[in-house]
Amino acid sequence: MNNCAIIVAGGSGTRMGAPLPKQYLEIGGKPILMHTLSKFLKFSPKIDLILVLPSPDMDLWKSLCLQHEFTVKHTVISGGKTRFQSVKNGLAALGEDHDLVAIHDGVRPFVSVEVIKNSFIEAQKSGSAIAVAPLKDSLRKLRVHGGSHFQDRQQFRLVQTPQTFQVKKIKRAFQIDELPIFTDDATVYEHQGWEVSLISGNPENIKITTPEDLDYAEYLLSKQ
Amino acid sequence: MNNCAIIVAGGSGTRMGAPLPKQYLEIGGKPILMHTLSKFLKFSPKIDLILVLPSPDMDLWKSLCLQHEFTVKHTVISGGKTRFQSVKNGLAALGEDHDLVAIHDGVRPFVSVEVIKNSFIEAQKSGSAIAVAPLKDSLRKLRVHGGSHFQDRQQFRLVQTPQTFQVKKIKRAFQIDELPIFTDDATVYEHQGWEVSLISGNPENIKITTPEDLDYAEYLLSKQ
Repeated sequence: MNNCAIIVAGGSGTRMGAPLPKQYLEIGGKPILMHTLSKFLKFSPKIDLILVLPSPDMDLWKSLCLQHEFTVKHTVISGGKTRFQSVKNGLAALGEDHDLVAIHDGVRPFVSVEVIKNSFIEAQKSGSAIAVAPLKDSLRKLRVHGGSHFQDRQQFRLVQTPQTFQVKKIKRAFQIDELPIFTDDATVYEHQGWEVSLISGNPENIKITTPEDLDYAEYLLSKQ
Repeated sequence: MNNCAIIVAGGSGTRMGAPLPKQYLEIGGKPILMHTLSKFLKFSPKIDLILVLPSPDMDLWKSLCLQHEFTVKHTVISGGKTRFQSVKNGLAALGEDHDLVAIHDGVRPFVSVEVIKNSFIEAQKSGSAIAVAPLKDSLRKLRVHGGSHFQDRQQFRLVQTPQTFQVKKIKRAFQIDELPIFTDDATVYEHQGWEVSLISGNPENIKITTPEDLDYAEYLLSKQ
């Protein structure tokens, strides 16, 4: 089995209000993205890592790698205007010999090795594996014309990454024009009429998007 | 306007795996419940505070208050077997002169004073105010017979507390037999056919239910 991971960091991180896009901000003295890449290497030293970055950031990333003496082997690919395009570019970079690919948000450095492993096992078996988590709070749905109503949170799951797939299937799924409903890779995959498989994510696998998240990330790291 | 708050701490906190129910566990050297009560006092020194505790815990709470020299004035009421019963007992303890009541989870000490204030303003105007937060992750709904499908997270809100109400209306709403759909006070209120109003909660207003939450709470406190 020849595994690879596409780490998607195409975003400009405007929600953070920081001078640098969020994926380059440091936690524990190192850019978030480096933690994420290292986590996949920890899962398997033989994994092929593809990092999708915004085109204008290539030099910045190179200098950050030098500055932090970051030696984890990875291939850098230019992202597109949307997440869909960025992932598509990443998929195009895969070799013929790759069987499974984990697609993962660059700003989720706290995914556990166990979850990565389980995602590859499940995708091998069923075609896909989407990491999800139960909701801890009650849930309400907004009505179109105002108001809201109660939802049974047990029937819902929060979607994380990795979203891991058999390469042949996910490549085929991405040979389609982008649609607004494609908010992640699972939605692209299931648009083919294929059911996605869900696996349990780890609760601390947060997406770092706000200054509060960055604080929490620093805290999580200090505990490790 | 004569405001009061019912702080609900009826749970036995089995998820925490700690010897003490979670509401008595310490953060920053003080039981969580004391932080919560103090937050409402910070909002208004004149607020009437009603604390609903499991009956067997009355002596424990008294001794904790002595031990921590906790002098925030509050009335302690015995809870029931369910959250519904505990809130009902709390409502029964309200005087005739209370106009508005904020019902709040004892294990949510990080609610902001601003959110408490906004909840009273909105409830005064429209009858109710439910603190909610947007979802940061994508959402999927499980199908009854297996599988799952994508949901537009923009149409959903995570429910927090306080849930603040006009006393007359919420008292009337609780004069009903308990139903399984009553997972919070908003669902009891809207069972009367009344629409609840939503207000923005604060992101750090977490419900402390697991050991990880307790760690994070300790960290949040250290940042204040």
